[in-house]
Amino acid sequence: MDLKDKIRSLKDYPKEGIIFRDITTLLKDGEAFRAAIDAMKDLVKDEAIDKIVGIEARGFLLGAPLAYDMGVGFVPIRKPGKLPADTISAEYELEYGSDKVEMHVDGVEKGEKVLIVDDLLATGGTGSAAVELCKQAGAEVVGCLVLIELQGLNGREKMGVPVYSLMEFPA
Amino acid sequence: MDLKDKIRSLKDYPKEGIIFRDITTLLKDGEAFRAAIDAMKDLVKDEAIDKIVGIEARGFLLGAPLAYDMGVGFVPIRKPGKLPADTISAEYELEYGSDKVEMHVDGVEKGEKVLIVDDLLATGGTGSAAVELCKQAGAEVVGCLVLIELQGLNGREKMGVPVYSLMEFPA
Repeated sequence: MDLKDKIRSLKDYPKEGIIFRDITTLLKDGEAFRAAIDAMKDLVKDEAIDKIVGIEARGFLLGAPLAYDMGVGFVPIRKPGKLPADTISAEYELEYGSDKVEMHVDGVEKGEKVLIVDDLLATGGTGSAAVELCKQAGAEVVGCLVLIELQGLNGREKMGVPVYSLMEFPA
Repeated sequence: MDLKDKIRSLKDYPKEGIIFRDITTLLKDGEAFRAAIDAMKDLVKDEAIDKIVGIEARGFLLGAPLAYDMGVGFVPIRKPGKLPADTISAEYELEYGSDKVEMHVDGVEKGEKVLIVDDLLATGGTGSAAVELCKQAGAEVVGCLVLIELQGLNGREKMGVPVYSLMEFPA
């Protein structure tokens, strides 16, 4: 089974000229979903990991099963105003303007080894904000694990931590 | 380990008089997270399940590990405009006005047995909209599985399908 075939490519979404890589067609296939999680886990098998940090919302779909299977805790990074307790925040640049992500101040602890998980790495904006949040909290980011990496956008370079991706698509 | 002790209760969030039950303190504890997922799975062990449908965003955190572990597909229900392909939608009532949730039109198939998963059952507004979406698609809803059920809000009655909850709190 080629897991790449399970990704649906949607032309001109969310706007003209963009090909959106839709992971829901992989997720709804039980066999493919399990194989993808197992293969992602295998990519980071040599890393010591205390916690997984997942980025809202599609990062939850991959990070939570990985945390469950590894037996480690899961910490969500969310858009502003979504987390109920005290938070820390980090900004990142958009094409026009900027946006912000938040993490509970007690989500990860000083010295913990954390793995950041998301569905897709593009320019690395959200991902590097996630790295910044974990560092603010005093954690050590052992890497960023994604299902899909878009080529030619230099997201990997921007992250500043090891990047593990299961598959690549042209941007 | 009493998993209820892992839930953080926040007074007056999101507004005065409400006690918010925060599951992030359970999720970040690897042992508690795994135990909660295993106990939720045990609640539905007698049901035949083809797919898990999870409600954005906290339902993703519980539904995705359950789907992974059971080896079945996962289908997200999201807020309007978040799903990239063709969708069906269902409305539900809020205290003031109404809101909508969407599912991909090809998410679940006719005759499939689906389990709806969310973090919390309160009045059952979103939950019963999720049931309606699955029925629109021709699926059979075998039940709704939540981590937390709030007492005294009649959410269970509103659902119209069997409800399984791991723990209860006063509303």
